[in-house]
Amino acid sequence: METDIDYRLVSSDDHIVEPPDVWEGRLEAKLQARAPHVIVQDEMDYWTFEDRQIPNIGLSVMAGRPYEEYTTDPVRFSGMRKGCYDPKERLLDMDRDGIEISALFPSVPGMAGTLFSEAQDKTLGLRCLETYNDWLADTWCAADPKRFVGQMIVPLWDLDLAVKELQRGLDLGHKALSFPNAPESLGLPNIGDKHWDPLWDAVEEAGIPVSMHIASGSMRDSPLPLAVAAGTPAEVFVTVAPSSNFISVATLLWSGVLDRHPKLRFLSVEGGIGWLGYLVQRADEVYKKHRYWTRSAIKQPPSFYFKRQVFANFLDDEVGLATRHHIGIENIMFEVDYPHSDTTFPNSKELVAERFKDVPPDETRLIVRDNAIKFFGLDVQ
Amino acid sequence: METDIDYRLVSSDDHIVEPPDVWEGRLEAKLQARAPHVIVQDEMDYWTFEDRQIPNIGLSVMAGRPYEEYTTDPVRFSGMRKGCYDPKERLLDMDRDGIEISALFPSVPGMAGTLFSEAQDKTLGLRCLETYNDWLADTWCAADPKRFVGQMIVPLWDLDLAVKELQRGLDLGHKALSFPNAPESLGLPNIGDKHWDPLWDAVEEAGIPVSMHIASGSMRDSPLPLAVAAGTPAEVFVTVAPSSNFISVATLLWSGVLDRHPKLRFLSVEGGIGWLGYLVQRADEVYKKHRYWTRSAIKQPPSFYFKRQVFANFLDDEVGLATRHHIGIENIMFEVDYPHSDTTFPNSKELVAERFKDVPPDETRLIVRDNAIKFFGLDVQ
Repeated sequence: METDIDYRLVSSDDHIVEPPDVWEGRLEAKLQARAPHVIVQDEMDYWTFEDRQIPNIGLSVMAGRPYEEYTTDPVRFSGMRKGCYDPKERLLDMDRDGIEISALFPSVPGMAGTLFSEAQDKTLGLRCLETYNDWLADTWCAADPKRFVGQMIVPLWDLDLAVKELQRGLDLGHKALSFPNAPESLGLPNIGDKHWDPLWDAVEEAGIPVSMHIASGSMRDSPLPLAVAAGTPAEVFVTVAPSSNFISVATLLWSGVLDRHPKLRFLSVEGGIGWLGYLVQRADEVYKKHRYWTRSAIKQPPSFYFKRQVFANFLDDEVGLATRHHIGIENIMFEVDYPHSDTTFPNSKELVAERFKDVPPDETRLIVRDNAIKFFGLDVQ
Repeated sequence: METDIDYRLVSSDDHIVEPPDVWEGRLEAKLQARAPHVIVQDEMDYWTFEDRQIPNIGLSVMAGRPYEEYTTDPVRFSGMRKGCYDPKERLLDMDRDGIEISALFPSVPGMAGTLFSEAQDKTLGLRCLETYNDWLADTWCAADPKRFVGQMIVPLWDLDLAVKELQRGLDLGHKALSFPNAPESLGLPNIGDKHWDPLWDAVEEAGIPVSMHIASGSMRDSPLPLAVAAGTPAEVFVTVAPSSNFISVATLLWSGVLDRHPKLRFLSVEGGIGWLGYLVQRADEVYKKHRYWTRSAIKQPPSFYFKRQVFANFLDDEVGLATRHHIGIENIMFEVDYPHSDTTFPNSKELVAERFKDVPPDETRLIVRDNAIKFFGLDVQ
């Protein structure tokens, strides 16, 4: 089958590497000095916030580097590709890669802002979080509102504050909420718990979707709901990290949250999709066999809620594409993951042409472009 | 495609529910009273061993029951199907279900014998473990040596003892070793750690395979290497339990154990296979991108070792069959899981006919029969 892609792609997952001035001059005087800022120590750049020092780990800024140079060592701003932290340079890299639109996640705040939700001083945490949402809107999104999809973060420790910040984020023009895939790693109820219902009521009313990025839980403890044993090779962690969203999706399907909030939509981000058809099949089997003794909270088979409300993205996943009809071709979408180590940049279009060569053109277009536009509610043709 | 199955199936995973007399009259006088035995309390049967009371949980003995009756409540021996604990009755149930051969796992000792490896009194633990291997040989396997595949357990706390018991198990005619998928749950090194190399040397020399059943870790702590958050619905645990072997298989692939022991073969048991093509693909991607900074212990891509040495079984897995060529049609095999809640009994042949209707007959035969015969080294046509 011929894959003639005469349109640009949409990436449903990319990362801003915040430049040093994000929080500069934006907070009231008494908090300003305690906002995240960059210090240089032993010729390395570190973000500091409360008791923490946070470097930019090499694997997070590898876009364009050969695999032989991949490293977990910290990297200075001066050693990064400018597209990591500069929105105009990012747009040029998107042009090079054939990407029209990019949905953005934070780095220093944690992908769902959990650095601030775990702050010791919650007044400080809230102001820093609000400032990130402001900065995201007036620097990156403002650089090209048609091409950058802003995803807001909200304070997780207080639902009234969360709903208030959600409203503020909507007013700023943000198009989605980034929420931790494993809130239990912060000591909070799991993602399907009724605890979150007031937030989901507000999200449903706003009509925006929720992104659930892998490893978006605690910035202090392990963000993954997986126990990789001591002495286990690092590659095991890298191999299993994406599919850690298996537990998050299963929790969504079984908790009843999708039944209680029929318009709520979740995106499993960077989890890949090659395990997802199996998960939905397994969940339906459990529903068939086990719902009597469990007195299940859901009224329909899990696949019913999945098709209606759960979405997932992937970078390079041949097995996932082979099972796309088991998952649902309207439930999956492409991502680039710029500038992280697994990114498809700068070869996204070549990769898509190769991987989709046996996929009908109308399905390809849904998966690499139209599904994401619909999911984020974008005003784009 | 016509699926004309004119042969009987092989099940690579079934469970003995030990009858009350397994350890009776088999231990020396000073230990006999402390061997596992059944007591009746409040009109319920319980196994007792050291400080533990272990009932037969309903979900473990549901063969033949309608789903509406599935329960986690304990069940008495008198309330079970006789095929659970009686080998002659089991053979009749296998006849009813079109099953020629069945590979057997223990219940009370834990599926890899970890009850005894966690015993406070290791002298007692060792004798009880040896007795199980004896009993397995002279009751079940002796009832029909061509149809029952005995899988031995070994003491995990002492490698010299383990190698010695392995040799004894071979002499008893056992055809495989059942080893925990998560030895770290017992505080032992992970399944790929060099710690186990002396045991693997002996297993390799014996030429037998190793079965790695889901949830075969600790009988005291969670046997699953997954953290399902508090307040999470029970169905999430049931949904994710099979694919908990994802971490075990990834650990095998990356640890170098398959490189150090090229003739060692592992079977992922009851894990399903619908996630396995994705895992191998992901592992190869990690090898391509990350092996430089990880200084990987393996010399070939993970898929090389997988094809050669890792096998997996499944009950009912349409997505797995759709991806069978991504996994390898010689690496997968059918299982019945009698008498557990997910068992295909008594409809195994009907299920296979339906699920394999689009699979070529030669591939079907490999998957539902010949692969298992080859894997266990059975002398059967």
